[in-house]
Amino acid sequence: MSHPHPELGAPPPLPPHGLRIVALGGLGEVGRNMTVFEFGGRLLIVDCGVLFPDPEQPGVDLILPDFDYIRGRLDAVEALVLTHGHEDHTGAVPFLLRERPDIPLVGSPLTLAFAESKLAEHRITPYTLTVREGSRERLGPFDCEFFAVNHSIPDGLAVAIRTPAGLVLHTGDFKMDQLPLDGRLTDLGGFARLGAEGVDLLMSDSTNAEIPGFVTPERDIAPVLRDIFSRAGRRIIVACFASHVHRVQQVLDAAAAFGRKVAFVGRSMVRNMGVARDLGYLQVPGDLLVDAREIDALPPEKVVLISTGSQGEPLSALSRMANRDHPVRIEPGDTVVLASSLIPGNESAVYRVINGLGRWGATVIHKGNALVHVSGHAPAGELLYVLNLTRPSNFVPIHGEWRHLRAHGELAKLTGVPADRVLLAENGMVMDLVDGKASIVGAVHCGYVYVDGISVGEVTEASLKDRRILGEEGFVSVVVVVDAAAGKVVGGPEIHARGSGIDDAALVDVLPKVHESVERAMADGMADIAELEQVVRRTVGRWVNETYRRRPMIIPMVVEV
Amino acid sequence: MSHPHPELGAPPPLPPHGLRIVALGGLGEVGRNMTVFEFGGRLLIVDCGVLFPDPEQPGVDLILPDFDYIRGRLDAVEALVLTHGHEDHTGAVPFLLRERPDIPLVGSPLTLAFAESKLAEHRITPYTLTVREGSRERLGPFDCEFFAVNHSIPDGLAVAIRTPAGLVLHTGDFKMDQLPLDGRLTDLGGFARLGAEGVDLLMSDSTNAEIPGFVTPERDIAPVLRDIFSRAGRRIIVACFASHVHRVQQVLDAAAAFGRKVAFVGRSMVRNMGVARDLGYLQVPGDLLVDAREIDALPPEKVVLISTGSQGEPLSALSRMANRDHPVRIEPGDTVVLASSLIPGNESAVYRVINGLGRWGATVIHKGNALVHVSGHAPAGELLYVLNLTRPSNFVPIHGEWRHLRAHGELAKLTGVPADRVLLAENGMVMDLVDGKASIVGAVHCGYVYVDGISVGEVTEASLKDRRILGEEGFVSVVVVVDAAAGKVVGGPEIHARGSGIDDAALVDVLPKVHESVERAMADGMADIAELEQVVRRTVGRWVNETYRRRPMIIPMVVEV
Repeated sequence: MSHPHPELGAPPPLPPHGLRIVALGGLGEVGRNMTVFEFGGRLLIVDCGVLFPDPEQPGVDLILPDFDYIRGRLDAVEALVLTHGHEDHTGAVPFLLRERPDIPLVGSPLTLAFAESKLAEHRITPYTLTVREGSRERLGPFDCEFFAVNHSIPDGLAVAIRTPAGLVLHTGDFKMDQLPLDGRLTDLGGFARLGAEGVDLLMSDSTNAEIPGFVTPERDIAPVLRDIFSRAGRRIIVACFASHVHRVQQVLDAAAAFGRKVAFVGRSMVRNMGVARDLGYLQVPGDLLVDAREIDALPPEKVVLISTGSQGEPLSALSRMANRDHPVRIEPGDTVVLASSLIPGNESAVYRVINGLGRWGATVIHKGNALVHVSGHAPAGELLYVLNLTRPSNFVPIHGEWRHLRAHGELAKLTGVPADRVLLAENGMVMDLVDGKASIVGAVHCGYVYVDGISVGEVTEASLKDRRILGEEGFVSVVVVVDAAAGKVVGGPEIHARGSGIDDAALVDVLPKVHESVERAMADGMADIAELEQVVRRTVGRWVNETYRRRPMIIPMVVEV
Repeated sequence: MSHPHPELGAPPPLPPHGLRIVALGGLGEVGRNMTVFEFGGRLLIVDCGVLFPDPEQPGVDLILPDFDYIRGRLDAVEALVLTHGHEDHTGAVPFLLRERPDIPLVGSPLTLAFAESKLAEHRITPYTLTVREGSRERLGPFDCEFFAVNHSIPDGLAVAIRTPAGLVLHTGDFKMDQLPLDGRLTDLGGFARLGAEGVDLLMSDSTNAEIPGFVTPERDIAPVLRDIFSRAGRRIIVACFASHVHRVQQVLDAAAAFGRKVAFVGRSMVRNMGVARDLGYLQVPGDLLVDAREIDALPPEKVVLISTGSQGEPLSALSRMANRDHPVRIEPGDTVVLASSLIPGNESAVYRVINGLGRWGATVIHKGNALVHVSGHAPAGELLYVLNLTRPSNFVPIHGEWRHLRAHGELAKLTGVPADRVLLAENGMVMDLVDGKASIVGAVHCGYVYVDGISVGEVTEASLKDRRILGEEGFVSVVVVVDAAAGKVVGGPEIHARGSGIDDAALVDVLPKVHESVERAMADGMADIAELEQVVRRTVGRWVNETYRRRPMIIPMVVEV
């Protein structure tokens, strides 16, 4: 297995018959999946998603792939292939299209419909090319063939990319539910055909590579839902991902069976389920749906709400219900079902919601106490099938943290991929497929691009470091007004702290020291404001540390009059 | 089941023949367990632990129970019973003994030894009374009998407290491993005897009440460790809790079997294992141990390190190894075993450590991919045994978040405890046991007491709110120097931002507005500095929000000369 930390320089020129592959996201993280393929000077992009921030990235709304690598060559982009409609594969599309609006989007009907409805909120109307399983499209030098894959959203596709450099199979996200609700199986026959033809490089979803075994079929949730519905005496509230059409379908079916009406709650849920229904992916019996505003008129035992907020997002409907800060009031006897995964990092928030709902008397059912969720990603047992059917000459595990990529790499070696043909790459590493052999030939800069409010890329690592210090320790600011000519302090010093846990009243003890140190520095000939501010910073910082054993950020401000 | 949110006022006087129970921590949270019993004007405390902060409590080191309720009556405290030596049951003892140093500590030999070694670091030598399973001690009006319980630390005790008001059984933390390493079983026979006598109130550990079934025996980890040791070609590093003597024993046994030397890493690991060895709870073959500084002189395949840091604590040895910021350098082929639970809220930190170790080439084994941990708390199947053996007239689930307490309450009802005798209480709620019936009669104030650095209780909820805002949004400070008499701005305005993601250079655009608004306010007769600061805050806040859609903390400082 290739060493993860070679001293990589800029990549050499790409040989004319070689294929270059660079992931701008998705390697070493779960999210912002984006891979750039280059052949003969032309580019093909697969997916363009967002990553959700972790606690080390406070205040950030979204994280984008770093487009720097392609920014000067956007005109060379033949198309952006979207494997499926999840945010971690499509969420950064609006930001890419801001830079070149006419990049064609290629995807299945539902994938494009979800993307277009999101883009409409950004007032962008994209160029699109609809494909389906079995479609084969030439996108510049990239001959793309599409295969059905089963996932936690309908209409997912894998893509085989043929160039003179060889055949690459990119699986997108997938699992291999053998009894899918829509009967649309992951196309193992197609993968086998590619294997027979010769797969030069397999790039396959690693999210669940550490999990042994096989997925439980989605439809096994149905009897659990029926059991929950049969016991529920009052309102039922089901929270799940706003794109999980099949999960919602199962809730609708249970509601219909038990004579309950259904209302959707949460903007993305309402939007996506409207799209899915219009396109025929969601089957809704005639008068099943009601508007969320109408539910108070119905008896509680006749209502199901399907809501966003399954990850404990603080502003979501479900979190607000848990805090009694939502028009839907939780009452004793209500049943809340979190029919969703628990994404690592969200545990505290989700348990806070569960405890909050429980305090108001709701019975809360979640994957920890009932089979109300199955994963959308193939675990190790299924990944082995794909490796064995495609028999790739080279393998790059994609979509996952390092531990997932590594585990998937081990599986590939077990199926016979030579260790030196298993490439564990990170974002920005440049992989060239030349003469049938894939290797890491260099690296390009590839950072995090933070979206915060309306700004993109303005929040930097330095800002985040400041936020972490401020969030842990608070700050102390000190103002001193000086008359530089007279060498005197003429106003202040004044001191003020926030978040430090130290009273302003206690802080005044340091002010004589500040006054004295500034005047002494000026007497010694110091006139530069920045240097005087350093004197203030040192004086206050040392005193706070010695007195309180704390290290708040010290903000000195020396003003001249 | 009692309603969790009655409108509770101050409690009525306690009848002379009644027992009053108030938890100052541990109800609605996993940690800072502390329960106060009162009879005839005398107090008995069971446990006095700390809670570790969650992401909503940034920068906090520890959270203590709120001693306010007993602060004026510390002289009435007969004793503090410690059920076992975990930090969430003993960690706040130094802080309580600061307030009254001669409160006697009552506990088993190992529990007291761990507590005393920790207290020695605080330069406190406590009064102690050693008890064992079978001991019966009169502590004022409280007749206390002690029972062996099995847990993830040796020498745990449950305590039956008899007063004229009735018999209360407090289980402490426990599970029911039927093949414990030390042969010391949870004393179900003793619990049955109490049940025959009549348990008026059972207070029982709820941590795993949501988990069905039974614990796996601790000794089932041994073959897994042997398998890991047999495959490991280089160093083995095992991280686990520093108090888990039996887990460490199993690692020592495996090391001895495979001819490896062992070094302890991390201050609390070294301290606790020294205590456990001295008292005979840890069996260490003659020359097995080496000093951590000596390991570089040994061949890597002859070394095992047993380390702290299993929860991804940023400053721990293991996190520093993952960052290559520790004398122990991880090399390809090393094996790291996280033989511990994953406490909710720590997932991101732990996965960061796992990914970091993996990047350096280590194989990382954890509870997600091997049986290297079993829980210390009884799951539902075992809790039912205790309920059925003790047949309590009243039941209070303790030690857990609301969801755990609720689940335990449901179990109690299934075993026949009447619903109105199952009390779901929160910290500070006052429960009186009078004439055989327990009920919630009121509430006392009971808040969070934050330890940050050397300060206790100085960090307030307001400081934490400030930290959360600062940590998410940063701040913008603005200084204006005014000559109030002349009604003029004579210095500044100067502006400075940190963590906001807005450049200082961009912020200067607002300065003319600040200058103008302050002078206009003074011209209108405003002279109060606080009011002028409000003017500055509004001017800057509105501009930042309109320009950047952000809401950093705005810190105006108006200084007079």
